[in-house]
Amino acid sequence: MAGIPADLLFEGARLATMGGAGLGVVENGVLAVRAERIVYAGPRDGAPRFDAAERVDCNGRWITPGLVDCHTHLVFAGDRSEEFARRLAGESYAEIARSGGGIASTVRATRAADEAALLAAALPRLDALLAEGVTTVEVKSGYGLDEETERRQLRVARALAGQRAVTVRATYLGAHAVPADNTRAGYLDLVCDRMIPALAAEGLADAVDVFQEGIAFTGAECARVFTAARAAGLPVKSHAEQLSDTGGAALAARFGALSADHLEYCSNAGAAAMAQAGTVAVILPGAFLMLNEARKPPIAAFRAEGVPMAVATDLNPGSSPIASLRVSATLACVLFGMTVEEVWRGMTLHAARALGLQAEAGSLEAGKRADLALWSVDSLAQVVAQIGPSPLWARYHGGVRA
Amino acid sequence: MAGIPADLLFEGARLATMGGAGLGVVENGVLAVRAERIVYAGPRDGAPRFDAAERVDCNGRWITPGLVDCHTHLVFAGDRSEEFARRLAGESYAEIARSGGGIASTVRATRAADEAALLAAALPRLDALLAEGVTTVEVKSGYGLDEETERRQLRVARALAGQRAVTVRATYLGAHAVPADNTRAGYLDLVCDRMIPALAAEGLADAVDVFQEGIAFTGAECARVFTAARAAGLPVKSHAEQLSDTGGAALAARFGALSADHLEYCSNAGAAAMAQAGTVAVILPGAFLMLNEARKPPIAAFRAEGVPMAVATDLNPGSSPIASLRVSATLACVLFGMTVEEVWRGMTLHAARALGLQAEAGSLEAGKRADLALWSVDSLAQVVAQIGPSPLWARYHGGVRA
Ligand SMILES: [Zn+2]
Ligand SMILES: [Zn+2]
Repeated sequence: MAGIPADLLFEGARLATMGGAGLGVVENGVLAVRAERIVYAGPRDGAPRFDAAERVDCNGRWITPGLVDCHTHLVFAGDRSEEFARRLAGESYAEIARSGGGIASTVRATRAADEAALLAAALPRLDALLAEGVTTVEVKSGYGLDEETERRQLRVARALAGQRAVTVRATYLGAHAVPADNTRAGYLDLVCDRMIPALAAEGLADAVDVFQEGIAFTGAECARVFTAARAAGLPVKSHAEQLSDTGGAALAARFGALSADHLEYCSNAGAAAMAQAGTVAVILPGAFLMLNEARKPPIAAFRAEGVPMAVATDLNPGSSPIASLRVSATLACVLFGMTVEEVWRGMTLHAARALGLQAEAGSLEAGKRADLALWSVDSLAQVVAQIGPSPLWARYHGGVRA
Repeated sequence: MAGIPADLLFEGARLATMGGAGLGVVENGVLAVRAERIVYAGPRDGAPRFDAAERVDCNGRWITPGLVDCHTHLVFAGDRSEEFARRLAGESYAEIARSGGGIASTVRATRAADEAALLAAALPRLDALLAEGVTTVEVKSGYGLDEETERRQLRVARALAGQRAVTVRATYLGAHAVPADNTRAGYLDLVCDRMIPALAAEGLADAVDVFQEGIAFTGAECARVFTAARAAGLPVKSHAEQLSDTGGAALAARFGALSADHLEYCSNAGAAAMAQAGTVAVILPGAFLMLNEARKPPIAAFRAEGVPMAVATDLNPGSSPIASLRVSATLACVLFGMTVEEVWRGMTLHAARALGLQAEAGSLEAGKRADLALWSVDSLAQVVAQIGPSPLWARYHGGVRA
């Protein structure tokens, strides 16, 4: 009697399906792939019989969902390492900004780079993430701050998916900063009235993000951006409460945001609003570390309210030059007290949800895309408890070894 | 007219010789190697003419001294990632220790591992360091706590140098903890009266280290160990003032220690004593981070007193599972405010001195061994300002590409 046809069958694996409330561990598991999708992930005992074109003996290795880095700014030009050196040598942020440094320096370099140059600069950063098991990555614009460059950043984000076996979600972060060559009002008009409708129509952006902060945009300004995004049919996200509590989490929740990110100064009310809206809290310990911040995000409040927590790199040239989701997870454990289980769900299930991809990625469930990470470890704690070479054994994107 | 014979000539390089008080930068530099040694490192203008068997065009890349990781515990068996998970899930150190965890678990696993198993476990850790440009590594014993296993750890440390192109310094850290199967007095007798003289005679140890701390050994006990070491002709080092100020830095200085390491609670008097003795302060931010400590080493006092500062990984299975000297340097900058110049000197010149190897390694000077790291970066800040893939382009040990 013939079994169920499958392209690929993983046997002898330990699965962390991320199903249920924990890691969804299945010892002695089987995972079957057909037409780029998972058709079965579960115990060998009771599994259907598969006629597989290819079999992989996992020898007890772990299979997890492919990792999802749900917050990056990895398309940019220029390098700000010298600013890192200058800050340590005693120069203030203000002095560095006055001399043309900070985000303005990245905007200058990004505007001056053509599409090929931006792509070439982004690929090594992407490759570093993929080498650690990432199969989905979000990429934000926000270093152009003009029509042409923001579009170019988003086109490069899209182009990355043609160059590597990875799913890319492109987020328009026009409201990252007010550019030096525009007024505040004029720039917001451009973002809300021209860019958002146009990008939605062109299919260049999957979501719209803002930076709500004293040094960036007010709640009222972000509400206007969110309104424009929702009118254009795009979901929203927010850089919220990183340096102060300006009510960004609650505002994001009010607009049904996919996620609010950073959240060091998020109030209990903000956490409650996020829980009610189903907004994911994206924890970004890299920026916290590199900026040597003291105020930690309210992990206990997120737990108490049942806010799903994701962990991401925030990979960017200034505040978080960290091309490692694993290191970010380790930092979330060590600095913020997140548990190993929480950071694993945060790099998979909840990160997918922060991108609106919960039907496609983030867990090992029949019907989802076969994005898998295979690990040569005895326990999944080993992946995040150590800083150093990645114990990744193999990575599959859509059922294809990448 | 014939030039000076050389085996290898690097041209078009930017050199960071670590000569003088800073990085000793030479733009448009030349470095010549003969018989495993540097015979010239300096500006192209005014350099002698070399007849080189092989020439390397560096295309503007940087050459630094090969990195020196002057404090590791990388020869051990077992894995303590599950303890990391249990601590985050709320278990206390005491509970974990009572259930057989902590250092006792590493001692058990290390005693049970034969030489081949220990070597196989250590090599990937060593390879991770070498991949980032390390050419000299120190390895401590201290997970055997009995004659046979401590010796085995030291033999494996020596054996690493036969397996890879790297200089290894082996340090006897018998005074790491009192083993469960011995009395305090009996174990100290073993360390001081038997092990130290024997290891010195056998040439198995290059230095003797102690852990002076409330939870480990007292100042009087460490003084006895130091006395035995000096009597056996071995230089000393100390794990000092990591968790409390017990006068470990001053004691180490009194015995002319090569280095005192950790030093979070080091007093001004301790720093002054180290300066006078020429004892290097080895800064270990990895353990500070992973233990989520608050008290930082007194970098300002070390600067004021002129104490040379090194940076190292402390690579070990419990408090610092960090197989990256680069990440350690980044952390020393971000967490402790060390400058880029300080961490570069700390990974090279001062780290070599912390091992008594200042005549052999740590700077690009004629006469020293040609241990080199070549970097594909525009500025040396880039090497330490970013966490992610290493920009190392090539590594040479004794003038041989490794
Ligand atoms: Zn961001
Ligand atoms: Zn140590």
